[in-house]
Amino acid sequence: MSQNVYDRPDFFAAYSGLRRSVEGLDGAPEWPALQAMLPPMQGLRVADLGCGFGWFCRWAIDHGAASVFGVDLSEQMLARAATFPMRGITYQRADLSALQLPADSFDLVFSALALHYLPDIAPLLATVHAALVPGGRFVFSTEHPIFTAPSLPGWATDEAGRRTWPIDRYLVEAARTTDWLAPGVVKYHRTIATTVNALLDGGFTLTRLHEFCPTSEQIAARPELEQERDRPMFLLIAARRSDE
Amino acid sequence: MSQNVYDRPDFFAAYSGLRRSVEGLDGAPEWPALQAMLPPMQGLRVADLGCGFGWFCRWAIDHGAASVFGVDLSEQMLARAATFPMRGITYQRADLSALQLPADSFDLVFSALALHYLPDIAPLLATVHAALVPGGRFVFSTEHPIFTAPSLPGWATDEAGRRTWPIDRYLVEAARTTDWLAPGVVKYHRTIATTVNALLDGGFTLTRLHEFCPTSEQIAARPELEQERDRPMFLLIAARRSDE
Repeated sequence: MSQNVYDRPDFFAAYSGLRRSVEGLDGAPEWPALQAMLPPMQGLRVADLGCGFGWFCRWAIDHGAASVFGVDLSEQMLARAATFPMRGITYQRADLSALQLPADSFDLVFSALALHYLPDIAPLLATVHAALVPGGRFVFSTEHPIFTAPSLPGWATDEAGRRTWPIDRYLVEAARTTDWLAPGVVKYHRTIATTVNALLDGGFTLTRLHEFCPTSEQIAARPELEQERDRPMFLLIAARRSDE
Repeated sequence: MSQNVYDRPDFFAAYSGLRRSVEGLDGAPEWPALQAMLPPMQGLRVADLGCGFGWFCRWAIDHGAASVFGVDLSEQMLARAATFPMRGITYQRADLSALQLPADSFDLVFSALALHYLPDIAPLLATVHAALVPGGRFVFSTEHPIFTAPSLPGWATDEAGRRTWPIDRYLVEAARTTDWLAPGVVKYHRTIATTVNALLDGGFTLTRLHEFCPTSEQIAARPELEQERDRPMFLLIAARRSDE
């Protein structure tokens, strides 16, 4: 069972105050890059794994998706998502580590910043592969391993006065417990290679890899994003169910 | 024109003393992982881009390759390679940035630690794609971007006394001038995503990604390799010329 940190009151309160929780997709700096990796939504049957407040589910319907199946482990997040009902969206509470989906039923599976909560992604990839139609798309974001690797994540300053992001244990794949928004949040550090090879081994073809970097326009509008050029926070991946 | 640092006497002398120069493939800790990504050599027509002293060229012939075409920019390295002549191996001096190869002529293109000397890999990828037969393999290693990113590469110690590898400018892709073996060596820092997407855009299918981590056995035999678990030095990639 995955840790259900989103239903802890301290975490949920802090998370609800994040820009991406208040403003939705437009509050997430990586959204334009992730959106660029998506197929046109028109007529698609979509699943959103780790749907949270349902921002993406509603966006997909707004952009022509035929249906969206939103899954999340957090009761509170689903309760808030349900306050914005929309024709074509169904929500279900489930742990992504033990998710079951009907076979050959989705044209697109989407997942934003959920996979780093899973100790092992192979079971979920098998579920996603079987749930997609042949040629179906899997597009997801996860925390970048440069961001998750450090024993003590945080910025530092080098001898020359430059801001640096010191990493260690990059190749030691295991849980990392951090105090992000609340104490004791458990995420799983995996290298890019491990994630990509799990996809290849799971019957997917990689179609795009993106290490999020804010654009100059984004940095002009939100100067605090400038530091994101020193180390990527998000890894975005697009893959296709192989037909072979 | 790429920098020909290998023909500078100070660099060449230092490089010639490296374990991988003295012992060949077995002196390179990433070789077993790279070898595991190679197809069986039997009967293959092989090109080795950045062949150096020719260690891989000779290994390929020893393992049944039909022919090996070794290319390098360094006159001195090719001169030494030529002192170990072997039936089936042809060497040629060329800059990989402006390489020409005959079309549909190779089953495998191999390249070890050469691509980070090229300001842009797209022209070489186009050459490799055209030179491979459909379904042919491209297997290569390059310095890992976590290794090449920092303005001031080197180990540091954090407040808790842990060894760290501070990075900055990971998403700023440009030349990095370092004093590796000799002053003023120019390498080009590219993210993993940029390298992978260049392959996908160039008509390749990604088949394996590997961020080199020494095995426990390697660390037992060479304790200095233990630090490589904190940050990867090498990125290994296997791809296939797409038939689509």
